[in-house]
Parts: sequence; C-alpha cells; structure tokens
Amino acid sequence: MKVYLAGPDVFLPDPLAMAERKRAICAAHGLVGIFPVDAHPEEAADGGAAPWLQIYRRNEAHMRGADAVIANLTPFRGPSADVGTVYELGFMRALGRKVLGYSNVAAGLLPRTLGFLGGAAWRDAEGRWRDADGMALEDFGLADNLMIDGGIHEAGGLLIRREVPKAERWSDLTAFEACVKALAGGR
Amino acid sequence: MKVYLAGPDVFLPDPLAMAERKRAICAAHGLVGIFPVDAHPEEAADGGAAPWLQIYRRNEAHMRGADAVIANLTPFRGPSADVGTVYELGFMRALGRKVLGYSNVAAGLLPRTLGFLGGAAWRDAEGRWRDADGMALEDFGLADNLMIDGGIHEAGGLLIRREVPKAERWSDLTAFEACVKALAGGR
Repeated sequence: MKVYLAGPDVFLPDPLAMAERKRAICAAHGLVGIFPVDAHPEEAADGGAAPWLQIYRRNEAHMRGADAVIANLTPFRGPSADVGTVYELGFMRALGRKVLGYSNVAAGLLPRTLGFLGGAAWRDAEGRWRDADGMALEDFGLADNLMIDGGIHEAGGLLIRREVPKAERWSDLTAFEACVKALAGGR
Repeated sequence: MKVYLAGPDVFLPDPLAMAERKRAICAAHGLVGIFPVDAHPEEAADGGAAPWLQIYRRNEAHMRGADAVIANLTPFRGPSADVGTVYELGFMRALGRKVLGYSNVAAGLLPRTLGFLGGAAWRDAEGRWRDADGMALEDFGLADNLMIDGGIHEAGGLLIRREVPKAERWSDLTAFEACVKALAGGR
C-alpha cells in the first residue's frame, strides 16, 4: 500500500531527512511512503514548465498513484493546518482514497482561533464568537475546519491530536506512527 | 451550468444575503450558483448525524453535483485562504471540474507571509526566507500556496487578485463577477 505523506514538512530545514524518517516508519509497518519531494517518473517530460508548476504536477501524480494519505495537520502560520496539505486532503478524499491525519497540538479549533485573535474576538447576541470583521468562529469541538474533520471521517480515517512541546512540534512522529499503524492494521 | 460558491462567506453575519447576491450574479450570466448553506435533497435522510457532519455531507453532495467551483481565496485568519475553501478546491480539482478563484487582496503569498511573521522572518545562508521554527517560505511569486495556484492552473481556471479596501473586503464582488463572466464565456 502506497501512502502519500502530506504536510508542511516540505518546508523544514532538512526535508529529505524527514522524508527518510517517515519512509522508514512506513516500511517498518509494511507500507510504502511517498514524500512530496520524491522524484516521479512522469517528471522528466515536464522540463518546460515553471518550477512551481512542475512541483504541483509531481505532487498530483504522486497522489493519483497512492492508496492513502497521512496528513500532518499541526497548525501552521495561523489557527489552522497548512493550506497546501488541506488541498491534498480534499483531493485524496475526492479520489476515494483512505485519508488520515494528525496534529501535534491537542487543542481544538475554537480555543486555537480565540488565542490567535486575542482580544479581537467577541460574542454576538446569540452567543456566537465572531472576529473583528464580524466573521463567525466554528464551534463544533473539532480539530480544525469541519471540512477537514468531515473529510477524514467520511474517508474512514483517523484524526489524532496529541500535545507535543513546541520545540519538538515539527519533529515528533509519535502521532504519525500511530496513523501508520492504524492504516497498516486495516483502518 | 452549476457553480459551487466556495468561501468563508458562510461565516459572514448574514450569509444568506451573500448567497442571494452571488446567485443573482450567476443568474445574470446564465449560471446556477449553489451556496454551501443551500438545502440539498439528500439531506433529509441524514437527520441522525451530528450537525457538523450533516454540513460536511451536504457540502460534498453540492460539490459532486456541480460543474465548477468559484472560490473566495481572500486571506482568512493568517496569510493564506480559508482552509475549508481550499479543501473544496482540491476536492473539485480531483473530480475534474472547472476551478476558478479570486482574492480581494492583491499582494502575493510571500509579502503577505512576511507581513504576518513580522520581525520573526529571516534569510538563511542560501537567501531563502524562513520563520522562527526554521520553516521555509514559498517564494514563487504566486497568490497562495503552489497547490492552490497549481490546481486552478491545471483545471483550466482563472485566479483573479484585486486590491479592495479592508472595509469592503468581504462584501465586494467585482472579482467574483469577473470569474462568473469568464466561466460563462467558456473559460
């Protein structure tokens, strides 16, 4: 089973080292991990496109060839997960693949968003939290926007939230490995 | 042609008023606009599920029944677009539908992210921008994460960036209407 390893891990100082670590965990459980920066056979024919478009096409080809995705949904530059990762989550759900995710922050979307907004959040007449622009805050007790939690739920997947100290947030793979185990075990 | 109207517009103080405005613009160009909060025929059978899951399933059903998506990608609580909207963009791209988007902020992802990070951004030895965690900033001159720009590009769509004063950022539909026109004209 091929697993696409989505996440802002590609932005790490040494993404190839992370690719190796994740691939090794997959292999230990009988799965083949595919990291976004891995080469793809179709790539060679695409030399004329802009570099960013080559990356996009490679990631899409990797996803189409994978049976599942495990997404690192740890909040990234704001209260929610990395948008590139979330795009890939929606893409894989639409293809009917297995979708799993994990976050190294345990707090749910509402408390995270309140923390992000600071004093700018307020309650309207119905008691609903809103931001300075009057835009409502989701309050369903979920890990992130309901499209993320919902997509994983409908894809039969697993969404693990685990509190990791800030210094290890982008390196700790405990929750990732739990996803790999669940996927290898048929979840 | 049915168009799914994705965006954080659902969080507005009066989302139904925005639904009416967007639907009217679509109708003026011969298109049928579908807003996420619109009722869906399959919904009645789903009364037992949690409210958030009913919303997810309704949105997915709306998307599967639509020929195209026009996404409001105006930055939302951070440097990037709303994650729920981006999930739907990836979903529609994987289904092979037309994908268009607009943002009422003209600045690209890199300057927006630098503004978001403030003094925390720094350049590494190769001159690449990084954040306080050492995570790299994308620097391709794009509107948002390359998966967003790339998905729209590959789906034959259009991504309009237009600077709108902050007070009208969530109400101005000039760029939205330009997307509707392009879609109606066969783009």
